[in-house]
Amino acid sequence: MFKPTVLTALFLGLVLAPAGAQTAASPTPRSELGELTAFLSIPNVASDKPDIARNAARLKTMFEQRGFHMTVVQTPGSPVLIGELVPPGKPSRTITFYFHYDGQPVTPSEWKDSGPFQPIYRDKPLEQGGRVVSLPASGAIDPEWRLYARSAADDKGPIVAFLSAIDEARATGHPLTSTLRVLMEGDEEAGSPSLPTVVREQAAQIRSDLIVLVDGPQHPSGRPTFVFGARGIMSAELTVFGARHDLHSGNYGNWAPNPAFELARLLTSMKDPTGRVTIAGFYKDVVPLTAEEKKALAEIPDVDPRLMHAFGFAQQEFPGQRLEALHNLPTLNVSGLGAGTVTGQGRTVIPAQAVARLDLRFVKNITPDAQFARLEAHIRAQGFHLITGDAPTDQERATYPLLAKLRRIGGYPAGRTPLTSPMAERAVAAVAAALHTTPVRMPTLGGSTPFYLFSDVLKAPTVGMPVVNFDDNQHGPNENLRVGNFFNAIHIMQAIVTMR
Amino acid sequence: MFKPTVLTALFLGLVLAPAGAQTAASPTPRSELGELTAFLSIPNVASDKPDIARNAARLKTMFEQRGFHMTVVQTPGSPVLIGELVPPGKPSRTITFYFHYDGQPVTPSEWKDSGPFQPIYRDKPLEQGGRVVSLPASGAIDPEWRLYARSAADDKGPIVAFLSAIDEARATGHPLTSTLRVLMEGDEEAGSPSLPTVVREQAAQIRSDLIVLVDGPQHPSGRPTFVFGARGIMSAELTVFGARHDLHSGNYGNWAPNPAFELARLLTSMKDPTGRVTIAGFYKDVVPLTAEEKKALAEIPDVDPRLMHAFGFAQQEFPGQRLEALHNLPTLNVSGLGAGTVTGQGRTVIPAQAVARLDLRFVKNITPDAQFARLEAHIRAQGFHLITGDAPTDQERATYPLLAKLRRIGGYPAGRTPLTSPMAERAVAAVAAALHTTPVRMPTLGGSTPFYLFSDVLKAPTVGMPVVNFDDNQHGPNENLRVGNFFNAIHIMQAIVTMR
Repeated sequence: MFKPTVLTALFLGLVLAPAGAQTAASPTPRSELGELTAFLSIPNVASDKPDIARNAARLKTMFEQRGFHMTVVQTPGSPVLIGELVPPGKPSRTITFYFHYDGQPVTPSEWKDSGPFQPIYRDKPLEQGGRVVSLPASGAIDPEWRLYARSAADDKGPIVAFLSAIDEARATGHPLTSTLRVLMEGDEEAGSPSLPTVVREQAAQIRSDLIVLVDGPQHPSGRPTFVFGARGIMSAELTVFGARHDLHSGNYGNWAPNPAFELARLLTSMKDPTGRVTIAGFYKDVVPLTAEEKKALAEIPDVDPRLMHAFGFAQQEFPGQRLEALHNLPTLNVSGLGAGTVTGQGRTVIPAQAVARLDLRFVKNITPDAQFARLEAHIRAQGFHLITGDAPTDQERATYPLLAKLRRIGGYPAGRTPLTSPMAERAVAAVAAALHTTPVRMPTLGGSTPFYLFSDVLKAPTVGMPVVNFDDNQHGPNENLRVGNFFNAIHIMQAIVTMR
Repeated sequence: MFKPTVLTALFLGLVLAPAGAQTAASPTPRSELGELTAFLSIPNVASDKPDIARNAARLKTMFEQRGFHMTVVQTPGSPVLIGELVPPGKPSRTITFYFHYDGQPVTPSEWKDSGPFQPIYRDKPLEQGGRVVSLPASGAIDPEWRLYARSAADDKGPIVAFLSAIDEARATGHPLTSTLRVLMEGDEEAGSPSLPTVVREQAAQIRSDLIVLVDGPQHPSGRPTFVFGARGIMSAELTVFGARHDLHSGNYGNWAPNPAFELARLLTSMKDPTGRVTIAGFYKDVVPLTAEEKKALAEIPDVDPRLMHAFGFAQQEFPGQRLEALHNLPTLNVSGLGAGTVTGQGRTVIPAQAVARLDLRFVKNITPDAQFARLEAHIRAQGFHLITGDAPTDQERATYPLLAKLRRIGGYPAGRTPLTSPMAERAVAAVAAALHTTPVRMPTLGGSTPFYLFSDVLKAPTVGMPVVNFDDNQHGPNENLRVGNFFNAIHIMQAIVTMR
């Protein structure tokens, strides 16, 4: 339970009322934070089966306590939990919320002051010198405080905020206006290997009038955020081969081919200095933005300069287009390079091979197969023979001056919901009214989620509704949830579950 | 002691006489191999001080047993041994031999059948299925056998061959015609940090009428090899900076700059697809080959096709020029690339930085300082700001679109002796006569040795005279010395120490 007026003030950045202004009848949301920290104390790395089972059991109880009927779907990985709450009046309209309860792997030694599963509060972000603090027994809680723990933001905080929103609606006499469904997986950080099967097999229990995916951070402006699509993704490993083994760089340097130079030349051929990918057809299938999508983009506060300052660089890779516009284009990224040795004394050799790890992001209408084929064709067009085995054969080595291997890793397409979908419009309006602000509407999330499973496979209007702070150290050490975002998340979700 | 007629036959590749053809008066060189294997049993990694001290003590004894007057020069690293043997008749002409007694670091688990300091014989190279064999008690020893141990080839085998040559000359009544000096260091594999000081301080004890550096492998043709110069070397670490930390490749991909692409573009700008370095002035100071050097190159058997087959590639980096000709040009090599993660699941990030490890080789007349300055100028000409601190400052990050750091590591120049140096010509002729073949004369060794200390600092006629098999796995696991090369090495050195 919490006090909406305080929350609104928090959101608008106003000074908090002093603790004395709290009334006994409207306690600050301490119990909700207590439920969250207890939940965060259960380690939840997807590969850790016993702990994952404990999380699933706790989650089942938490939802059943609110009246949900819960089903546990076993998978080769972590169990998927599906639940339904039919409120009084049995509304025929249904809304499904997606969350995940697993967290990224942790390196405890990289966490400051406490382990990843011993939640602590700080009065500001660690990076700004935040000190460890204790929750006061009563009175207001500074919204700038941060709760540090693995999954505080990604994605346990939103789960508890959702349950708190239901509690709050009931406590304040606001009826739930939709039948509520939840879908919660425990393998999201391991790539959601079971989700496609579960979504297809449990389609009847998941499909609804609106699917709300609650994961990831809000727009850096801090406004409530709706996302109408997500990019697809595929990774690839590109290996360029030189001699069979490393060769002495003095005896054979500039005579034997150097795969590091060849890889550099190949990568350079894929993108021009203005950031434009030069692989033939790379942008061909991109669907132009609609008028409404352009309008939504124009309404988003421009955070490019602020982000560039925070991240520490002077020029974007693709100058002239802002971040949120670029999210509607496919990408080609190099996430790793490896050849020879770069540490210590090094070794003066011509490395036998050089490897680049790539990831490609897709937008609506681009199929992973087609984009991978374009990448392959480009590499061949640069004169490389692409081998199909693990390593070049003697015959291939004797025949082709340029030898490479391209290994495809995973891949799924993008998904997108029209901004003009009526149920989505209604949700945006409800949140706008409740929080007195214009939510950010992003046609496409930059990152990749299996959005297409909902928007394209289930063919349900789907929105992403991230609620946590963008500076949450998601996936890294010292992950944190801004307390004000947690309060706001309760407020936002209450608006959805009680909307007309 | 050994039987010259057998050795000559070995060298010419003739079938060995059966064991019965050996006479009791001309034993095969078992005692020499015994002295070598005993010496190889003492571990000799430069960083291992107690073992290095044992090697130095053993070496001092081995040389004193032959009548050398030995001096041990202490250095911050391993001791340097300097010795002199004045033969009967006190010849005024002196020849200095250089060797090193330390070996490359070892990873014992990578050695097959035996540890790096437990010498074993095989009947062929391991790569050709060689089996472990025992030295027969009498009779001929197959020259194709290999002796496996760290430093068998690099560089203890040549030391024992040198001592054996003196023994053999004395046993067969051939007088030593020069005063012999030796210089032996124990830090060669650690980069010879003390050698420049020792050579300068002990110049009077080292300078001579001919300096013979005995290290490294023979030309792949297997002919006796003389090297008249060696390239200099410098390493460098080139780091390109993107954002302060890794960024999510979905949220920020193709918006935030990717230093892996920037590094690829920068490296690509340094060398064209025909292998020619495109850094301005890179080849400017190269001195054209003399007529005699061109002639020597033309006489060297062309091993390019054989090496390409062995190494497994179809085209040289710099087509149209053979290996030994390219050794007379400076090089730019990428020995390592590193950015993000290429192993395991990878991480879909834009890496914060990308690193290339470079090495540059120099030929005569190119100074390390000038070549490094050209590299720096080239990087700047590509639009990069080169930082001088460890990491970019906030101000640098906010100002420069392209940020890099270039760290210079070590560096020394090339050295070269004219092919027409009279003492060098005499040595070549002596070996040619003794082995009945035309030795390979390489104007410049592809690799780098501190040749310049002798040729340029001491201003003494200097030649490299590598004697071991080129396929010796030098620096790697399973280093080996072809027994026939050991026998030939004794023969070659005897020709030098007894030459007119």
